[in-house]
Amino acid sequence: MAPIKFSVEKKIPNRLGRAGILECAHGTIQTPAFVTVGTKATVKALTPEQVKELGAEVVLANTYHLYLEPGDALVKTAGGLQRFMHWEGPTMTDSGGFQVFSLGAAYGKSVSKIADARAIGASDEENPQSEPAGKLVKIDNEGVTFKSVLDGSTHRFTPERSVEIQHNIGADMIFAFDECTSPSAPLEYQREAMERTHRWAKRSLDYHESKDARKSQALFGIVQGGRFEDLRKESAKYLASMNFDGFGIGGSFNKDDMYDSVEWVNGILPEDRPRHLLGIGEPADLLGAIENGCDLFDCVAPTRMARNGALYTLHGKINISNARFTGDFTKIDEKCACYTCTHYTKAYLSHLFRAREMLAATLASIHNLYFIVNMVKKIRKSVLDGTFTEFRESFLAAYQT
Amino acid sequence: MAPIKFSVEKKIPNRLGRAGILECAHGTIQTPAFVTVGTKATVKALTPEQVKELGAEVVLANTYHLYLEPGDALVKTAGGLQRFMHWEGPTMTDSGGFQVFSLGAAYGKSVSKIADARAIGASDEENPQSEPAGKLVKIDNEGVTFKSVLDGSTHRFTPERSVEIQHNIGADMIFAFDECTSPSAPLEYQREAMERTHRWAKRSLDYHESKDARKSQALFGIVQGGRFEDLRKESAKYLASMNFDGFGIGGSFNKDDMYDSVEWVNGILPEDRPRHLLGIGEPADLLGAIENGCDLFDCVAPTRMARNGALYTLHGKINISNARFTGDFTKIDEKCACYTCTHYTKAYLSHLFRAREMLAATLASIHNLYFIVNMVKKIRKSVLDGTFTEFRESFLAAYQT
Repeated sequence: MAPIKFSVEKKIPNRLGRAGILECAHGTIQTPAFVTVGTKATVKALTPEQVKELGAEVVLANTYHLYLEPGDALVKTAGGLQRFMHWEGPTMTDSGGFQVFSLGAAYGKSVSKIADARAIGASDEENPQSEPAGKLVKIDNEGVTFKSVLDGSTHRFTPERSVEIQHNIGADMIFAFDECTSPSAPLEYQREAMERTHRWAKRSLDYHESKDARKSQALFGIVQGGRFEDLRKESAKYLASMNFDGFGIGGSFNKDDMYDSVEWVNGILPEDRPRHLLGIGEPADLLGAIENGCDLFDCVAPTRMARNGALYTLHGKINISNARFTGDFTKIDEKCACYTCTHYTKAYLSHLFRAREMLAATLASIHNLYFIVNMVKKIRKSVLDGTFTEFRESFLAAYQT
Repeated sequence: MAPIKFSVEKKIPNRLGRAGILECAHGTIQTPAFVTVGTKATVKALTPEQVKELGAEVVLANTYHLYLEPGDALVKTAGGLQRFMHWEGPTMTDSGGFQVFSLGAAYGKSVSKIADARAIGASDEENPQSEPAGKLVKIDNEGVTFKSVLDGSTHRFTPERSVEIQHNIGADMIFAFDECTSPSAPLEYQREAMERTHRWAKRSLDYHESKDARKSQALFGIVQGGRFEDLRKESAKYLASMNFDGFGIGGSFNKDDMYDSVEWVNGILPEDRPRHLLGIGEPADLLGAIENGCDLFDCVAPTRMARNGALYTLHGKINISNARFTGDFTKIDEKCACYTCTHYTKAYLSHLFRAREMLAATLASIHNLYFIVNMVKKIRKSVLDGTFTEFRESFLAAYQT
């Protein structure tokens, strides 16, 4: 029996987008769905109950971080990620590829998943401080050797090792080891990296299929190819030919061609398996990615921005630290039904941020995650109702980026 | 009608200690009770729901801090402390005296409520970093002039102003303005400060009685007198003769004579009004103070220690950052029924502390507050059951300080 079961409920007419149901060992996800990031086996500043209450259905932890601290063997001994962190729903881990490569700054260029620097929305907290190029990471055809950001010790990830670590962590859905390149990498390097990612995808899958974890954990293969149409299509065809339970779509994109890239890929990937767009989570990006056939998304932007006081509203983001909010006794967003908006005013949040109180991060994270998670739920409903286009137009008309 | 109603249910035989019921405008407190500190209108790292769930019945905020940030006028506009911070139970504010004086380091000596340095348990986070003596504070017979720790601006508290600020903040129970001295201050200075505190108590009460807030807010007078028996008794007699709704017992004490001091005072204070021992909260201190007639206690120790990884167990405190806990999959305290102990292991908490995750502070604070709040509830039950002495002996035999 397959570790996950995915079915498409309804499609957006003439588009690749769809609403579906994804059944995992630890619960069911209604797609499209925003995947909450819990980098180090905790969604920053929130209890699992708070994460669940705001509507999140699934948590993604980072393999790189858990491998270094507290170690995947310890998470395994604890009974796996879910038990360790007391999250009772479905879980995912990424492959560690993005973090490993971001340490090496992708051959001298700082890594971002989207070339146009969209500040917080495009950057990732899983991305540790960059060191000079190549200093911390060395890629060869068999794997990657890197130094720990914690203590400088040397480590090595191979496709087999990445999957083994993810078996130990024990999430419901895991990813094949991949190489994440910079959006500005030239064609020849993108091809070389893509071909390496393909070989690693096969090795990841072979290793996974040889283990018992195959029965309870779903393995997703990752499509790469940068911003080049021919590479993206070649990568999608190659991955689609393999026995993956689902697919990831990895960076890197240019801001303006992300939806095209996603459409190239999703037009080729099999319709009966879920597609996860890695590291994307700004409202406009979610609309474009869902329209073009993506089912899952993870991004640290909502929680990271929340901790910096940047809060979503239907009219765009506000910075709660702005002086004009100190005496504002309205909610962050008058139409929002989250815990934070139900009980607290902008004036109170403004006070918490100015006083550097930890509750500031908690309340802001609840609001931002609720905003994004429930925005995706509304998109899902619009797909089911046949009103996606109206929803998108109406949302984008009000939302100022 | 009085703003609060207090009744004694049962006394400890041959002692001053008692169990009682304290009815306030915003709820009922079963005494003895530990008062959770929410310095800046937030119990650090916790939502009000988490505070309530762990068993806390009342929150105390600090007048000094709220006056400086966000300002008492803003809290008033918000509808008062309860509405501002979304705490639906009873509230208190202190007079600001302790913070104001701790800034001035009480004429050249650093202020602590207990002379013997008991590290965290005796220190307070409401006590900002000390500056050289007299630099930030100037006391005269009419009031205190001080500089803000936030921006160096000059402010002045008088008894009238302290009570006015507390009216604006709007807590159920408030305190008369007092001077908190160092335990090491000589007799002559303690007498001078006590007499000033008495004059300020009368002025605080006069101001309070002239205002409508009298109907909804209870005013507590504060007994001072340091570690001198004659001063403590004189102070208790003086305060007892006045029309206060309850009483605070202020520092300073020596470690060894605190219970004596409390007994001197509570033997004189009227039995039909609640007594709040200010700033005390270590387990052994709570037992001694309750035995000797105190009903309420506030202390930042449980939450401050929690944020530093020092966690209460029935056998004493442990430091969760200790290496031996990294692979320990047992609870903090096997007999504890708090949210944290119900769902998480020491290994997980150890991981959160090492990774400097905010959830560490939340889970640790829940545990420590639950421990103290519920220890006081157990003491209350033992008073009602007539088993206080057995409870005390059994607790102290197991608990290593």
